[in-house]
Amino acid sequence: MCTAISFETKDHYFGRNLDLDVSYNEMVTITPRNFHFYFRKAQDMMSHYALIGMAAVIDHYPLYYDATNEKGLSMAGLNFPGNAHFHREDPDKDNIAPFEFIPWILGQCETVEEAKMLLSKLNLADIPFSEQLPIAPLHWMISDQQQSIVVESVKEGLKVYDNPAGVLANNPEFGYHLFNLNQYLSVTASAPENRFSKQLDLKPYSLGMGGIGLPGDLSSTSRFVRATFAKFNSASGSSEADSVGQFFHILNSVAQPKGLNALGGGNFEYTLYSSCCNMDKGIYYYTTYDNSQITAVDLHAEDLDSAQLVSYPLISSQQFRFVN
Amino acid sequence: MCTAISFETKDHYFGRNLDLDVSYNEMVTITPRNFHFYFRKAQDMMSHYALIGMAAVIDHYPLYYDATNEKGLSMAGLNFPGNAHFHREDPDKDNIAPFEFIPWILGQCETVEEAKMLLSKLNLADIPFSEQLPIAPLHWMISDQQQSIVVESVKEGLKVYDNPAGVLANNPEFGYHLFNLNQYLSVTASAPENRFSKQLDLKPYSLGMGGIGLPGDLSSTSRFVRATFAKFNSASGSSEADSVGQFFHILNSVAQPKGLNALGGGNFEYTLYSSCCNMDKGIYYYTTYDNSQITAVDLHAEDLDSAQLVSYPLISSQQFRFVN
Amino acid sequence: MCTAISFETKDHYFGRNLDLDVSYNEMVTITPRNFHFYFRKAQDMMSHYALIGMAAVIDHYPLYYDATNEKGLSMAGLNFPGNAHFHREDPDKDNIAPFEFIPWILGQCETVEEAKMLLSKLNLADIPFSEQLPIAPLHWMISDQQQSIVVESVKEGLKVYDNPAGVLANNPEFGYHLFNLNQYLSVTASAPENRFSKQLDLKPYSLGMGGIGLPGDLSSTSRFVRATFAKFNSASGSSEADSVGQFFHILNSVAQPKGLNALGGGNFEYTLYSSCCNMDKGIYYYTTYDNSQITAVDLHAEDLDSAQLVSYPLISSQQFRFVN
Amino acid sequence: MCTAISFETKDHYFGRNLDLDVSYNEMVTITPRNFHFYFRKAQDMMSHYALIGMAAVIDHYPLYYDATNEKGLSMAGLNFPGNAHFHREDPDKDNIAPFEFIPWILGQCETVEEAKMLLSKLNLADIPFSEQLPIAPLHWMISDQQQSIVVESVKEGLKVYDNPAGVLANNPEFGYHLFNLNQYLSVTASAPENRFSKQLDLKPYSLGMGGIGLPGDLSSTSRFVRATFAKFNSASGSSEADSVGQFFHILNSVAQPKGLNALGGGNFEYTLYSSCCNMDKGIYYYTTYDNSQITAVDLHAEDLDSAQLVSYPLISSQQFRFVN
Repeated sequence: MCTAISFETKDHYFGRNLDLDVSYNEMVTITPRNFHFYFRKAQDMMSHYALIGMAAVIDHYPLYYDATNEKGLSMAGLNFPGNAHFHREDPDKDNIAPFEFIPWILGQCETVEEAKMLLSKLNLADIPFSEQLPIAPLHWMISDQQQSIVVESVKEGLKVYDNPAGVLANNPEFGYHLFNLNQYLSVTASAPENRFSKQLDLKPYSLGMGGIGLPGDLSSTSRFVRATFAKFNSASGSSEADSVGQFFHILNSVAQPKGLNALGGGNFEYTLYSSCCNMDKGIYYYTTYDNSQITAVDLHAEDLDSAQLVSYPLISSQQFRFVN
Repeated sequence: MCTAISFETKDHYFGRNLDLDVSYNEMVTITPRNFHFYFRKAQDMMSHYALIGMAAVIDHYPLYYDATNEKGLSMAGLNFPGNAHFHREDPDKDNIAPFEFIPWILGQCETVEEAKMLLSKLNLADIPFSEQLPIAPLHWMISDQQQSIVVESVKEGLKVYDNPAGVLANNPEFGYHLFNLNQYLSVTASAPENRFSKQLDLKPYSLGMGGIGLPGDLSSTSRFVRATFAKFNSASGSSEADSVGQFFHILNSVAQPKGLNALGGGNFEYTLYSSCCNMDKGIYYYTTYDNSQITAVDLHAEDLDSAQLVSYPLISSQQFRFVN
Repeated sequence: MCTAISFETKDHYFGRNLDLDVSYNEMVTITPRNFHFYFRKAQDMMSHYALIGMAAVIDHYPLYYDATNEKGLSMAGLNFPGNAHFHREDPDKDNIAPFEFIPWILGQCETVEEAKMLLSKLNLADIPFSEQLPIAPLHWMISDQQQSIVVESVKEGLKVYDNPAGVLANNPEFGYHLFNLNQYLSVTASAPENRFSKQLDLKPYSLGMGGIGLPGDLSSTSRFVRATFAKFNSASGSSEADSVGQFFHILNSVAQPKGLNALGGGNFEYTLYSSCCNMDKGIYYYTTYDNSQITAVDLHAEDLDSAQLVSYPLISSQQFRFVN
Repeated sequence: MCTAISFETKDHYFGRNLDLDVSYNEMVTITPRNFHFYFRKAQDMMSHYALIGMAAVIDHYPLYYDATNEKGLSMAGLNFPGNAHFHREDPDKDNIAPFEFIPWILGQCETVEEAKMLLSKLNLADIPFSEQLPIAPLHWMISDQQQSIVVESVKEGLKVYDNPAGVLANNPEFGYHLFNLNQYLSVTASAPENRFSKQLDLKPYSLGMGGIGLPGDLSSTSRFVRATFAKFNSASGSSEADSVGQFFHILNSVAQPKGLNALGGGNFEYTLYSSCCNMDKGIYYYTTYDNSQITAVDLHAEDLDSAQLVSYPLISSQQFRFVN
């Protein structure tokens, strides 16, 4: 499934692992300010903030998996099967299809606070992109440089959670994950002390034993715990290279190697790509499962006043550098 | 500390994470066949198999951390503090200093079976490289294309273990790690079934829950379990790019992000480099903590009949690839 | 804190561990049918079902911790600190003080279905028993011979959960516990199979390894999991002695030995008493921390048409039986 | 399988759970000083220390499961399948059959130090009691009022371990268990502190969360950890009733309820009896699976200068005490 995190050193970063068994030809896609955003049930947007992110572009429409706008506001959709529930049109609300949700928020909002205002009158309506493309059961993290929230449309309605961890994984509902961190509160990045009994001569025989108790599997609950632990104990320099490098190391700690999450029939869920967007500078970095070199796309290197989408296909073959 | 693995697809691979808090200016170093290997207490080797691996070169001597010879035999030394014990010279044995151990084996042996014969008359003698460079408390994994063994010099003498896992971490003694895998025997890469009670409607709410029970910390025992699980459940193509890529994904599953293993005083152990050597082709691939692109050095691109060491400094700054 | 379970062999049983640091002089107390139950805000009950259970009797009022009525309907209050929230009087509801809740339900209802009807118009009002005796933050399990429910009065209002596990512990809210069982779905009472890798020769070295993954601590979440596992995998004869004995063995698996749950200042929470009531026969069995012999009190041995409470002080000193 | 512990308050206590699927009609058996102990390969003992303990008496020979002598020296045999290995007769050693081991040590020794001297020339010889009664694969704990040791006869010979935990379970070899405690060193009986991250507001939601990480299953490794934790964190009064009661509470924390350890075919391993012997006073207390009342047999109530075994059949039916 997936893991998204926000992260801060000197600058602010937002990104995610996309864990799936198949790719949908997603590309790093820039939506400039004057791209015409058509909405099924809401007013069109003729001009809006520019966006950069990962998207499958279908019929000229960018179906964003995750994106950041020119103000830094960032958003990622993650799988939420069984729990995501989208509702009938509600005449008293803004009815937005799930696939329109990222453009609708990032096109208009500069901050999470602004997004919250839009969310207060939002109905995520059960409108698929097309007959061939049914609704994906997602939930979302929205982050700016100050805070993160999680948006879940469930049977009871639309729920918005403050997210002090700045991390999102998948099932179950977000409240469970946040509470579940309490189970791990005594886990530490430092050497553990003998609290078992002073009468017994117990001591660490290895570095890293303070982390004993952290779960090592690939379930969503375990990835949430591990990513949160990695993020909050992270130590890195604050340069762009250090920050981006560290961001990918954190994502790696919850990445899915191919084979370890078997779906049956010889299929596996694994980490198709990992992304890290500098929210302040609009630079979108990514690696793919098959290419560990970091590729970068710069929002501000494009003509942001254009009306045309720009897409960069992923460089997904391993870029070995032979030195002899 | 460290994790080493051997791995097989179409070709055979051997490599490791080096986890430490400081680098000793190690470089990818090729020792050609006619480099004069001087031994403190044993006969010099004027000619021998050529080697490629990671080494700190001091006073023209390659102190290998891990290496592969032109026949594919491979060897890595990993930290084993408190347990490693090296003995006084024994006149009835071949007395080899720990720092000479990799050249001594890889210089002469084509296979693990040949290495075992040398080990039967070996004494790892307590001889430091120099006064400034005391003996490192190591144990070693030796692998060829068929099998792996572990060599531990402890108080009771030299112990040689068959290693069906083909994985090595650090403390405690190797037998513990191998036995400890039994604790995790019901962990699976597939979806788990409800065995708790048929009367309760329990089911997986996330992919990856078969792995629940795997430890997620950075201790040597947990890294051993996790690396073994990743290796034996790995699914990858058999091309060179697929195999090498998968190898680094396995190593990533036990890599140490900076900050998660705190030594106190603002110091951290983290994964300085990860290596993967194609044992059949003699190509040494590596990444560093700060450079996720895979760099490669080819043994056979050098003059292997030379007498001069060749060293390639690590490319350790992030190699971003900007596409716009 | 506490653990309650319902259990069925030939007959039906209901009971609990009371885990606290101090006793309040509770006694096995029988409330006959014509004891006058006065309610602060609701109509008095001049006659009602007879009750047996554990209660502190204060000012002639039985403050029941757990009880069973003559029809078998059973109820236990367990600690729920931080989450329990009792509300202001609501003129549209039946306003019942928390301490009146057990008499109010068990006095009138024969089944859980009948209890549910009362709950639909219930407001648990924030009325203490007295100034000296503030409101205890409780939640409740109600069980008849067919089913169990959990009642939690929280900030959002009164929540009633179906409880297919028939087990209750403490924090957090009940939904978390029930969902959390999914984490343990592959744990089994049988010998585990090697699912880690067929290429490795892993096998159980001990009986009982199928249960690896069960938590062994005394937290409420762990006690809930362990008690549920014990209950649903229990194997016992169906005689009264076998059933009652097995019930106490299940409770023992989540009992708190003194010292293992330290509150500071030399105080400890431990299992003050364990109870098991035969719901069909009205026999209340208990053990205390200091007396492992099972003491029994029979509801039907009393004059159930009386108006007077009958209390039997606990036999709490160890009843050794010397045979020589 | 089984768990044995030694324990100290004002007096000293030694006992065990016997976990099996069938009983062999064991009884509390006193061997007075002048009972003639015949040994297969060693000198007979015409007089010796008196013993009390649990034994199956076959052909007038007490096959002790666990026993204490009149000096307090105590010994228990626990299952050790696959690892126990008994050797051919060795003419240079005292050849003692495994079933003679407890009489041989407890008959002659007052302390563990004395036992160690006998062990230095001991060979546990592969001599069965009879054709019908093959050798049980056991290892043993020997305790006096000061210390405990473990004796394991394995392929490599007889191993004697100091046992600072004073606890014994089953497989694997004892050294593993003792080392394995280090994995749990940060587990505590006190409330845990947030070490995960000071930036996150994590806190205990339940008492007992310091123990998170303790294993809750019935495997030998988990029982060893849990019993050691219970023993070293135990808090009890020092009276005989308090001490004995607490001892049984510790044993209960590793007891096996019927059904949770399934052997297949509808058979289950469970705790047949639990024992606690006051080493100083020679009083043997026990409970059985079906009788939770503590029964007691006093060594010193018998004629210790007799030559006749005295056996008290177990009182194994539940001793309910009805108070009305």
